[in-house]
Amino acid sequence: MSAALPRLLHELKQQLLFLSSTVEESVAKVVSALAQRDARLAAEVVAADTEIDNLEIAVEAECLTILALQQPVASDLRFVVATLKINNDLERMGDLAKKIGKNVIYLCGVPQPDVRCDFREIADISRSMVKRSMDAFVNGDVELARGVLEDDDRVDNLKDALYAELRSGMRQHPDQLEALLKLHSVARNLERLGDMATHIAEEVIYMVENNIVRHSNSNG
Amino acid sequence: MSAALPRLLHELKQQLLFLSSTVEESVAKVVSALAQRDARLAAEVVAADTEIDNLEIAVEAECLTILALQQPVASDLRFVVATLKINNDLERMGDLAKKIGKNVIYLCGVPQPDVRCDFREIADISRSMVKRSMDAFVNGDVELARGVLEDDDRVDNLKDALYAELRSGMRQHPDQLEALLKLHSVARNLERLGDMATHIAEEVIYMVENNIVRHSNSNG
Repeated sequence: MSAALPRLLHELKQQLLFLSSTVEESVAKVVSALAQRDARLAAEVVAADTEIDNLEIAVEAECLTILALQQPVASDLRFVVATLKINNDLERMGDLAKKIGKNVIYLCGVPQPDVRCDFREIADISRSMVKRSMDAFVNGDVELARGVLEDDDRVDNLKDALYAELRSGMRQHPDQLEALLKLHSVARNLERLGDMATHIAEEVIYMVENNIVRHSNSNG
Repeated sequence: MSAALPRLLHELKQQLLFLSSTVEESVAKVVSALAQRDARLAAEVVAADTEIDNLEIAVEAECLTILALQQPVASDLRFVVATLKINNDLERMGDLAKKIGKNVIYLCGVPQPDVRCDFREIADISRSMVKRSMDAFVNGDVELARGVLEDDDRVDNLKDALYAELRSGMRQHPDQLEALLKLHSVARNLERLGDMATHIAEEVIYMVENNIVRHSNSNG
């Protein structure tokens, strides 16, 4: 092992954390934009996706450099491979935040649909899952990662409840269909954010325990 | 470089191809199941997802072994990293086929909704994108990969046309809302299959040209 490897791995972790904090910020902003019908904030989220894409490219390049020049083995190798995969997931989370942002911009331009949907709980849990999955990664905390997996069912149930509410709205107000479908998409994408957080949590458990829990729960 | 490396990389490619052919088969089956309202075929697709998950785990384990024991560099390293990422995408394509399969099972149990939606074209293009992206990977064929990227807009347009048709159905037949939403989800997931194929195609171009085209098109 080269003497430089621990430092390079530390820097790689910092780089990934900077990406994840940028993604978390986008998620937080888009959730606020939805709650406050704030199209300007939603537009910021859409614009921030380019930065997220560039950060992902930089993290991947660094992983390749470390693999090529440092040839890490054992837990260091697993860390780099986990970083590659988490990096990919974070970039796609950025895409989801952007998609939600575009829907929020649409929703801000039309009258608020007549439906009693509260997105706060699903938004809060999904956001918290993203944050906790990355905290679990930083600290190699398997218990925290398992907690993220447990929340996946809650998010699914909240999404199903929102879906039911939105469908009932579609039946009663077919003239508001477009806006209700956008809200349907927002619910789905918030749930998918939670899903991506479970991928990260599974990766953390795998990295720490070399124990594949992916696919053993019912998501896939 | 160890003398074993070319053989190991060849075997890894075969293993990934076996996974991709399994995924392609699931996609083909679920498309037939949808067209023929064949719940039994759809159930086969749902069941096949476990095999896909296991194949993905095996490919990843092999990548880690090669990275640890063979320490590939340059284009060999890029090939292994591309394999890791494509492997991940293929597993998620399997998840999408499974999701569509579940929707088809639901749709087989209810009357056919009164809507003139033809899924054949979007299904054919998405399937073809999956196949061509993997052919591009096998042959390092950048032109073929670029063709996959070009199809992405066609799939988007077909999805939008299906969405418009389904929305009109929802307005006219609110009593069929549930089935129409399932078809909406099928359209979305077929489009996402095409999206995942573009991820693979982008990865192939990156691998061959070391040229990042990801994020330069408008998907992300």
